Amino acid sequence: MPDLGALLWPRTVALIGASADAESLRGRIFNVMRGHAFAGELYPVSRSNAEVLGLKAYPSVADLPRPPDLAVIIIPAKHVAEELERCGAAGVKSAVVLSSGFAESVGAEGGEMQAEVRAIARHYDMAVMGPNSEGFANIAANLCPTFSPAMEAGERPLVPTGRPRPQLAVCAQSGGMGFAFFDHGRAKELAFRYVITTGNEASLETLDFADFILDEGKTDALLLLLEDVKTAETFRRVAEKALRAGKPIIVNKIGQSRAGVRAAASHTAALAGAYAAYQAMFQHYGIIEGGDIGEMVDIAAGFLGWGARLPHGRRVGICTGSGGGGGWMADACTAAGLEVPELDAETRQQIDVHLPAYGTSQNPVDATAQAVAKIGYAGLAQLVLPSPTIDGIVVVMTARSPHNIERQRDALARLADAAQKPVLLWSYTLPAQKSVEILSQAGLPLYTDIGNCARTMRVMADYRSLRERFLRPIELRSAPEVAASRVRELLAEAGPALCEWEARAILQRYGIGTNSVGTLAATAEEAVSAARSIGGPAALKVQSPDILHKTEAEAVALGLTSPQSVRAAYATVLANARRHAAKARILGVLVQPMARKGREIILGVKHDATFGPLLMVGLGGVAVEVLSDVVLAPAPLAASEARAMLGRLKGAALLDAHRGAPAADVDALVDLMVRLGEFASDHADSIAEIDLNPVLIHARGEGVSVVDALIMKHKNSHSASERGED
Amino acid sequence: MPDLGALLWPRTVALIGASADAESLRGRIFNVMRGHAFAGELYPVSRSNAEVLGLKAYPSVADLPRPPDLAVIIIPAKHVAEELERCGAAGVKSAVVLSSGFAESVGAEGGEMQAEVRAIARHYDMAVMGPNSEGFANIAANLCPTFSPAMEAGERPLVPTGRPRPQLAVCAQSGGMGFAFFDHGRAKELAFRYVITTGNEASLETLDFADFILDEGKTDALLLLLEDVKTAETFRRVAEKALRAGKPIIVNKIGQSRAGVRAAASHTAALAGAYAAYQAMFQHYGIIEGGDIGEMVDIAAGFLGWGARLPHGRRVGICTGSGGGGGWMADACTAAGLEVPELDAETRQQIDVHLPAYGTSQNPVDATAQAVAKIGYAGLAQLVLPSPTIDGIVVVMTARSPHNIERQRDALARLADAAQKPVLLWSYTLPAQKSVEILSQAGLPLYTDIGNCARTMRVMADYRSLRERFLRPIELRSAPEVAASRVRELLAEAGPALCEWEARAILQRYGIGTNSVGTLAATAEEAVSAARSIGGPAALKVQSPDILHKTEAEAVALGLTSPQSVRAAYATVLANARRHAAKARILGVLVQPMARKGREIILGVKHDATFGPLLMVGLGGVAVEVLSDVVLAPAPLAASEARAMLGRLKGAALLDAHRGAPAADVDALVDLMVRLGEFASDHADSIAEIDLNPVLIHARGEGVSVVDALIMKHKNSHSASERGED
Repeated sequence: MPDLGALLWPRTVALIGASADAESLRGRIFNVMRGHAFAGELYPVSRSNAEVLGLKAYPSVADLPRPPDLAVIIIPAKHVAEELERCGAAGVKSAVVLSSGFAESVGAEGGEMQAEVRAIARHYDMAVMGPNSEGFANIAANLCPTFSPAMEAGERPLVPTGRPRPQLAVCAQSGGMGFAFFDHGRAKELAFRYVITTGNEASLETLDFADFILDEGKTDALLLLLEDVKTAETFRRVAEKALRAGKPIIVNKIGQSRAGVRAAASHTAALAGAYAAYQAMFQHYGIIEGGDIGEMVDIAAGFLGWGARLPHGRRVGICTGSGGGGGWMADACTAAGLEVPELDAETRQQIDVHLPAYGTSQNPVDATAQAVAKIGYAGLAQLVLPSPTIDGIVVVMTARSPHNIERQRDALARLADAAQKPVLLWSYTLPAQKSVEILSQAGLPLYTDIGNCARTMRVMADYRSLRERFLRPIELRSAPEVAASRVRELLAEAGPALCEWEARAILQRYGIGTNSVGTLAATAEEAVSAARSIGGPAALKVQSPDILHKTEAEAVALGLTSPQSVRAAYATVLANARRHAAKARILGVLVQPMARKGREIILGVKHDATFGPLLMVGLGGVAVEVLSDVVLAPAPLAASEARAMLGRLKGAALLDAHRGAPAADVDALVDLMVRLGEFASDHADSIAEIDLNPVLIHARGEGVSVVDALIMKHKNSHSASERGED
Repeated sequence: MPDLGALLWPRTVALIGASADAESLRGRIFNVMRGHAFAGELYPVSRSNAEVLGLKAYPSVADLPRPPDLAVIIIPAKHVAEELERCGAAGVKSAVVLSSGFAESVGAEGGEMQAEVRAIARHYDMAVMGPNSEGFANIAANLCPTFSPAMEAGERPLVPTGRPRPQLAVCAQSGGMGFAFFDHGRAKELAFRYVITTGNEASLETLDFADFILDEGKTDALLLLLEDVKTAETFRRVAEKALRAGKPIIVNKIGQSRAGVRAAASHTAALAGAYAAYQAMFQHYGIIEGGDIGEMVDIAAGFLGWGARLPHGRRVGICTGSGGGGGWMADACTAAGLEVPELDAETRQQIDVHLPAYGTSQNPVDATAQAVAKIGYAGLAQLVLPSPTIDGIVVVMTARSPHNIERQRDALARLADAAQKPVLLWSYTLPAQKSVEILSQAGLPLYTDIGNCARTMRVMADYRSLRERFLRPIELRSAPEVAASRVRELLAEAGPALCEWEARAILQRYGIGTNSVGTLAATAEEAVSAARSIGGPAALKVQSPDILHKTEAEAVALGLTSPQSVRAAYATVLANARRHAAKARILGVLVQPMARKGREIILGVKHDATFGPLLMVGLGGVAVEVLSDVVLAPAPLAASEARAMLGRLKGAALLDAHRGAPAADVDALVDLMVRLGEFASDHADSIAEIDLNPVLIHARGEGVSVVDALIMKHKNSHSASERGED
């Protein structure tokens, strides 16, 4: 891995393609950089100018007094490789390629040039950002090699004045969006450490920078805009590192829709994978998804303020001087999945002393404008905070008047320092900039969007509980190693698709579907005898790796109760199977007891091209299939995660007792999910897909029945027999 | 109805309780009013001051030179009635009561004082706003009788400078929230005509003001914050008037959650009804719900700009110079239910001329920053607009630099004037205030929240199509008048609950469930004979108005195929029924054919306390009940509305052909819904609830089967027999 420190923290920077023309991108970048007090040295490199804006310019990087740590390259695409090569040869350790016209262009040429960039970076172990990047800002170092207008020096300094506060960083492929986060967050008086925009990511990707930032340990929240993840490995490492460190990642993944995928592909040549797989990975690692720049910045602000004192649950107290505002906030909190419980009697008593007859301490605590004018927002919050019925507080307020906020400055700062539960502020009026500054200084996150405020409280609570679950020691694996190695052999021997009988033989080695294997009959009489030993109604299913959808082929007969019916059905299903696929290799007819009743679930594994095996669970039945109530998680997974997956199903309540039906055996289902996840993960290199559909979940204590099973291998994972070794 | 014109457009205003103390509410209101150039006369009324801020003060309203049009009252609650009485006697036509301490207070006294206020208003036919109101602003008249700091005179005038533009109005119970809308909207350079805050609504309610504003005809969009609707009549009239006039209402209903209901009750003594009923009414009249102040203002801005040129459909073209921004917008549009289709070849050709190799015209049209710098945002939009594949355009842009926007001012204004499809702007950076002004002048709505931008396009398209549906001539009623009057008699004779047999007898007069009535048997042999004539499996159900849940009482037997089984079942179900309820009046045993298979639907009517009968339709089956997939609409309803209701079901796709099953007979279902709606509406005065559960929807052309039916009458709607007239 090249040295990202050389790129982000250079002492000497060469600007290759420097120009004094303020209207051109080249001129703009020079101006942006000169606008900030970077302590290192800056060398313009220009073929046509001996001097740029008062600085001596050099004709080539080779002519510089010494090789710079960082080369910022903004010359036509076709010259970039040559220049980068020259940099590498001269001992330059890192480069930012701002030029466009690489893989995002029409035609093959751009892609080839980009491959060259990658190759040179690799050859010299150079840290290369871009091409088609908009550069970066290391705000802590006053270094802004970018032409983004958002980084031009202006009235407002790059970091808030006053006491140092927790910092955040942005990593984005898109330059426009990356710096827009800064623009929004700076207006809210947030302290950014880095804004990094990686463009086409020929060499370094967004997550490499996130990794560096986490290792550095000076950033408390990360805003990430992803068009794609190129290395799942890196994603996993970074996501886990962030979660362990308690540094939340707030992400937007571009390409959630078909049109979005199209856009990302043409923009940075990103190959956006299945969004559902990304969501599963985000959920697994507690990465918080945001849909809007303002929303993501707002969520980050909550963590910057309260990261060390996250809420222990979802119960929120609302303090307000406006009855309408309190009611609205109660609705918004409920919509965000928070609870707004009535306060306990003791706390109410303490509050009531301060309220007029037309106020109420129930929750929302509507103190009325009159009482708030007396005791202040902080005073009111201090009264509500001790209640054991709540995990955090939202204060409904108006920050329109800076004088009003100024007057309460000290009390608010004391509140922020002392509170052991998070306090968020929602101003229903637009705050004066001075109010924003005072509240930011005090350390209190301020919201103008009611939904963002409520959602921040919710995701802070969820983040805490997910992280605590994640940090608990991992449960031991359930399948013994010997089973894994035997399964590896069996899978190697199998064909590209494994029918139920073949799949069951393998799956049961991991304890999957062991209570419902059945008997494979080769003759009608074997079937009759197998059915008789069942002692109840039987099912017959033709087994063939060439007939994967047995029902469609009418190769299944159900509810057979007499020897005659079994015999007749045996003939019928085989005849149907042959009519359906004349050349199908038929292994026999599987005879099974009819499954006991239970809630229908579909369980499966899909291999995602980026992230590998994902476990899928969904409610079965036609009705719910139409509603596509399905959730995914990366395999393997712990029991606690399997349980959390079930909780995410829209129809989760179906597993509870209802309408006289007893609660379903969720423990058995969770066990099955964990085993299947382990199986999928152990054999990810050969398995493309597993379908257990349906699985029936019986009443608590009565287990589950796997009614059907199917395994598909990767296309390139040939069996021994296909390779002619048999 | 009192004269709201006197209240909103007075020529003379008395301020009762005037004070010069700028720190008090009384002093603040005086200051706010004096800050604006109201052309009428203002009289301070004060018992303790002979002069207030340089104006001669009068000891009583009776001492004024002439009775004022409007009295603004801000004195302690206990004196208000007396003062209001004095005003009425003096000939004052209207009053705003700002004082608190009425029905929103603890104890009965406040409620009594509020009743007095109501009585006096009625007695003198005085237009009274409040009590517990924060007043109003008639911005067009520079009249601001309110102590809201948002209306203090400041640097920014109350209306945008430059050419007059479409106006909007706010009507809210909550003063804090009402003026907050103004605060947000004014920052976006929107032109407000009124801000009205009604407080406890002892007399006039929010919707009365909305009604006045619609009649006046000078306002193009209404922002409404409702805590409750007191008169459904008024709601219907206003909602219909607004929709006919094409003036959208954007609403937030406080009290969507339990905690919100609690808050509204304590705040303005509002009795928030069932939120689901409100939602049904909103959907019926095309009233748009918003969850956040900024969002609601943003939606209004879209209508103010494009109300006369709403999109014909949901297909949107995205113009961008930022690839990341375009991709993100594509995702946001898709999430909002819009389509982002690829553009047609001809339009693409026209665009491609202007793009570099690394741009794309597919849609999002990523022109690249370079091309946008050349042709401008308006130029790009003009290229995309003609495409027949899109109904509107979103331009992704950065409005950070006012110079950049200033340069494009004329082109943007021309675009706004000429475009026949709406154009919305999303700036991913925060716009300079000067940019906001320029774009507002040009007539182009500007968004900083990506979701609000996408959602605005969506609701504009939906509003247009709903309005067109609404304005179409209403379909003729299906049930003849004679049926209605006979049903009225039958309902009057019936007891409080009508079992299936009784309910069917009535419902079939409206053509409901006619194909599945069955025969009522009084003996086992009658049942056998009825079953025989069916010719297939039969169902037996005990009929009693005292046993409404037959299945739970085990008073039902299904799938009976032989005379023996019918005879045995007859005895069993009767015995079970008697065991369940010994004293039940039993009408007989209903013999019906088993229902043919079909998709299970639940259909019903609930009488909402505020809005009257609401038709309810939902997907049946345990699975979907857990997901509570149910929608409501006011009855009666047209076929087109019934169809739209079905479209709102999450599982709507279940009615389509799927998995080999043919499409369901939606036409028959719609017909049934229309008939049931008519029935419920004709007999709303006696019917509290109707349940048709389940209804089975067969394949297209094969109709529906009403499997069970139940009618509950209002508690106070006694039958003739119960009144002892029998």
